[in-house]
Amino acid sequence: MIDERMYDLGNAPSAIRELFAYGLKRKAEIGEDKVFDYSIGNPSVPAPQKVADTIEELMKLPPVELHAYSPAAGIPAVRQTIADSIARRYGIPAKAGRVYMTVGAAASIAISLGAVTNAGDEVIVPSPYFPEYKVWIETMGCSIVEVPTQVPSFQLDVEAMGAAINEKTAAVIINSPNNPVGAVYTRENLEALAAMLEERGKEIGHPIYLISDEPYREITYGAEVPYVPTLYKHTIVCYSYSKSLSLPGERIGYIYVSNLMDNAKEVYTAVSGAGRALGFICTAVLFQRVMEKCVNEPSDVEAYRANRELLTKGLSELGYEFVEPDGAFYLWVRALEPDDEAFCEKAKAHELLLVPATCFKSHGWVRISYCVSADVIKRSMPAFKALMEEYK
Amino acid sequence: MIDERMYDLGNAPSAIRELFAYGLKRKAEIGEDKVFDYSIGNPSVPAPQKVADTIEELMKLPPVELHAYSPAAGIPAVRQTIADSIARRYGIPAKAGRVYMTVGAAASIAISLGAVTNAGDEVIVPSPYFPEYKVWIETMGCSIVEVPTQVPSFQLDVEAMGAAINEKTAAVIINSPNNPVGAVYTRENLEALAAMLEERGKEIGHPIYLISDEPYREITYGAEVPYVPTLYKHTIVCYSYSKSLSLPGERIGYIYVSNLMDNAKEVYTAVSGAGRALGFICTAVLFQRVMEKCVNEPSDVEAYRANRELLTKGLSELGYEFVEPDGAFYLWVRALEPDDEAFCEKAKAHELLLVPATCFKSHGWVRISYCVSADVIKRSMPAFKALMEEYK
Repeated sequence: MIDERMYDLGNAPSAIRELFAYGLKRKAEIGEDKVFDYSIGNPSVPAPQKVADTIEELMKLPPVELHAYSPAAGIPAVRQTIADSIARRYGIPAKAGRVYMTVGAAASIAISLGAVTNAGDEVIVPSPYFPEYKVWIETMGCSIVEVPTQVPSFQLDVEAMGAAINEKTAAVIINSPNNPVGAVYTRENLEALAAMLEERGKEIGHPIYLISDEPYREITYGAEVPYVPTLYKHTIVCYSYSKSLSLPGERIGYIYVSNLMDNAKEVYTAVSGAGRALGFICTAVLFQRVMEKCVNEPSDVEAYRANRELLTKGLSELGYEFVEPDGAFYLWVRALEPDDEAFCEKAKAHELLLVPATCFKSHGWVRISYCVSADVIKRSMPAFKALMEEYK
Repeated sequence: MIDERMYDLGNAPSAIRELFAYGLKRKAEIGEDKVFDYSIGNPSVPAPQKVADTIEELMKLPPVELHAYSPAAGIPAVRQTIADSIARRYGIPAKAGRVYMTVGAAASIAISLGAVTNAGDEVIVPSPYFPEYKVWIETMGCSIVEVPTQVPSFQLDVEAMGAAINEKTAAVIINSPNNPVGAVYTRENLEALAAMLEERGKEIGHPIYLISDEPYREITYGAEVPYVPTLYKHTIVCYSYSKSLSLPGERIGYIYVSNLMDNAKEVYTAVSGAGRALGFICTAVLFQRVMEKCVNEPSDVEAYRANRELLTKGLSELGYEFVEPDGAFYLWVRALEPDDEAFCEKAKAHELLLVPATCFKSHGWVRISYCVSADVIKRSMPAFKALMEEYK
């Protein structure tokens, strides 16, 4: 009588998490400095000092006020601050009434899918992709339609996406800067997507919602990251402070239903309903209040930039092929054999923990999470060298 | 193309929340001390000092460590502390491996329902009940089967519950101490429930899961609150620190799948899967760590006890009929006319904000949330008197 789908999901934990757990065990066995753990995307840069300062300040509030329930959508002043920040930075008329606080991007996406899909619908996802998208799409009784991105640029294949659209298509999920490949979709690429969605939406007789998953928006190395609602009006932004402010465990983010959308009020109302339906009462209030003060704190990307230099220079010299990363803290490297899982097993023998492309519904590549200390990268180079030599 | 059910849920916010919002508006109009807001269950007792002390201490940890992702089920040491506390207090062999940290009781219940129901199943709920139960049951594609409790004791009507069970019955949700009536189910009542579920489960060929929603476990005035897993093995405890430690906005609680359950491992695995499927990555880590230190902090019920005395004495003298509350901070009072909504409207004219039984799928009563300052109760007595006189 147990729900078999839930059992299977619980019984098949993320391969990334398993690799991370293996890394911890292996470090205990052979020493912390002997294992090169590139498995997970846990930021290695500390949260801004202002987070700690704000918490210290907030603790002076009377506890009954500080820890009270907030409205389901969030504390009004916090939503206002976020709307103001969006309006100021991207020049669109963002209003607090379209901002819905969530416990991070995962919740944002699950809730957004709940709002704009009905059982039997299809949701298009460019591959490779973060594997939980499939889980949340299927939770809503919908099917995922995977459309490979272009190799080796990993930009969206807009033509193929257009061809995949039919009457059942409810939404498209994009993620730029991208996990796992580190690509940032260009303005041109996103404009082509917007034009195609506009046109195909008219053809099929209903809007196609664009769910823009943006936890890495601030983690870039010079590339422009266009604000998607300025290009396509039926956009729902799913944001998280996990990476930009290094607060992954605190679960704080928001949904922004673009004020430029024709039916923004209806979509926002459905978002509120989906939050209720999935068991979210409100987002933890202490970190909501922290965001009121820290929403405009800059992200510290310098450590990631230095890591990116070290890693791409080192791997280049050794002869590895990779996608030049424009954002996020992931390097997408061509495996030295077609079977990326076999390649990762061989890397493991050199104590290099890499995530195979198979985890992201792709093949022949591996993901390196370079949100680690620079020292790990330096010390791992002989292992990468030995791995390369094994294939020569 | 919006999900109509989600839209309707978003468009029909809780009547309790609406009344609370009316209260804030009314206070601004006529003065804070002129409105007697008995609408919501926001604890009026401050969180224990140890919560603030623990946060201060935790802020000394390196931010990268402090704010990192935890495993989906929670920080192992936190789960261990909770399991140890359950084992010590209730004498059952609770293990950390069956504790799953959640963002409060709402998430706990939604996840538990996701784990042990399949679309088309039925879930039995004694009425009156917290209205969101219906929302979460329907999210899983299941139907709610309401079985009224006994009037005026508001104990479970075990015979009627047994008669409502059929092959499609997957689970029963109980809530003791109870919101909205303040009743605590007696050991005898719960033993009868356990025996009935055991027997009916055998008859229908599968176990019936008992979801025990326990945010008010610690808020009692002398009555025994038996630990449900010690009476019925197929119990899933949904706990929250919202009321016991006055942290409603911080969203912290847990699911405990009883170690005495035959298939505890399978149910726990399905709980883990349901958490994933609904978009919960992990529970906010700062408050997980707070719980590691505060799990055994006593609840301060003295203010609620004093309020209960004041209120029951005052209303008794005025001739109101009510259920003697054994737990929680709610008083269930007989409306002075059969139409509880009309009665609440009349109360509103006296600036008394009471919640009609209709909100809890019952009729002819009202709920008074007495988690307010004692002063509110004292000042409201003339209004209760005037309301009574209106009906004479």
